Amino acid sequence: MKILVVGANGQIGKHLVQSIQASGSHTARAMLRKQEQEADFKELGAETYIADLEGEIDEITQAADDVDAVVFTAGSGPKTGKDKTIMVDLDGAVKTIEAAKQAGVKRFVMISSFDTTRRAIQNAPDSFAPYVIAKHYADEHLRNAGLDYTMIHPGTLTNDAGTGKVHTGTAVDAADVPREDIANVILESLKNDASIGKEFKVIGGQTPIQDSLQQL
Amino acid sequence: MKILVVGANGQIGKHLVQSIQASGSHTARAMLRKQEQEADFKELGAETYIADLEGEIDEITQAADDVDAVVFTAGSGPKTGKDKTIMVDLDGAVKTIEAAKQAGVKRFVMISSFDTTRRAIQNAPDSFAPYVIAKHYADEHLRNAGLDYTMIHPGTLTNDAGTGKVHTGTAVDAADVPREDIANVILESLKNDASIGKEFKVIGGQTPIQDSLQQL
Repeated sequence: MKILVVGANGQIGKHLVQSIQASGSHTARAMLRKQEQEADFKELGAETYIADLEGEIDEITQAADDVDAVVFTAGSGPKTGKDKTIMVDLDGAVKTIEAAKQAGVKRFVMISSFDTTRRAIQNAPDSFAPYVIAKHYADEHLRNAGLDYTMIHPGTLTNDAGTGKVHTGTAVDAADVPREDIANVILESLKNDASIGKEFKVIGGQTPIQDSLQQL
Repeated sequence: MKILVVGANGQIGKHLVQSIQASGSHTARAMLRKQEQEADFKELGAETYIADLEGEIDEITQAADDVDAVVFTAGSGPKTGKDKTIMVDLDGAVKTIEAAKQAGVKRFVMISSFDTTRRAIQNAPDSFAPYVIAKHYADEHLRNAGLDYTMIHPGTLTNDAGTGKVHTGTAVDAADVPREDIANVILESLKNDASIGKEFKVIGGQTPIQDSLQQL
């Protein structure tokens, strides 16, 4: 598989490109905003493509040329300006979805937020609500886009080393999960067609990632 | 007709409630955020309803109980914090659309922005883009909501006195238009079923509002 990683320079994105390259049988194309970000990815043997998520859809469509899957793991994060929240987390995600459609790439993995439901919007503190709203509408767009999607709702992300074990499900209480494990959940999801059309939460747990995805 | 005006305390909203009440044959219900905003509207003979656009959909559904039409003319404006842009201009609009559906109100008039297309997003300066994005997705939601909608894209709004004359169409260059005229375009649209399922731009012009809507 060749996998376009949108947000490759983010923390999950870096782990993901590493895992893809380490797999031996798959290749990552890292979509990056700036040329100076390329070196690390080239060193891993990954392809790189410079494109701006805030630019035209066509730029992203070109980045997705000839790949088998697209992963959206870009994020302005809840702490950037709210203008970036709507431009990246909502509009950047929707443009990536549309670009995948235009490029004829059916397989799409979205890294969402832990809870993007209407209830989560209402319960979010004012400072966090705009981010939840942005992810809510991006997720809605993906569900209706006609793609073979998998939507991953990670718990509280940490920089701890991955354990290779997680707990997944739809009714799961929030808890920590290492970014490295999320990256491996993405790759395993792409390798397992049973994850198509599914969305699930992921927190740290006791079940090997592959088994956990079988149980979805 | 009884018309729920969401954003009644805004500049277009105030003109609209006035026009509705002055018509003699229609009644406005002004949706307001604060009790202290009620007096002016009660003086006009309008109903009032206190509800928060940032609250639950149910609040808005109750505000829409037993009305014949809903008008969304609330706006954080392009100059408020970007958090309000996504919370009011996008999510507030979508919640109002969903509330109209829940309340069984089919007729909906949306006051959009002059141009909310993908092209407009790309061409917008960074400071304005989040507002255009918010309006873009709100408009998209309305087009797919199954309501009898009219979507009005006003030119540059001014506080000049209304002239009763406008220019409407889909391919129209940006130009000024008094808020008072937009309010009357809303009311005339509600009285004219030919405007259902239509969206159009409105700038100042030479055609009486009623005639202009006939020509759509």
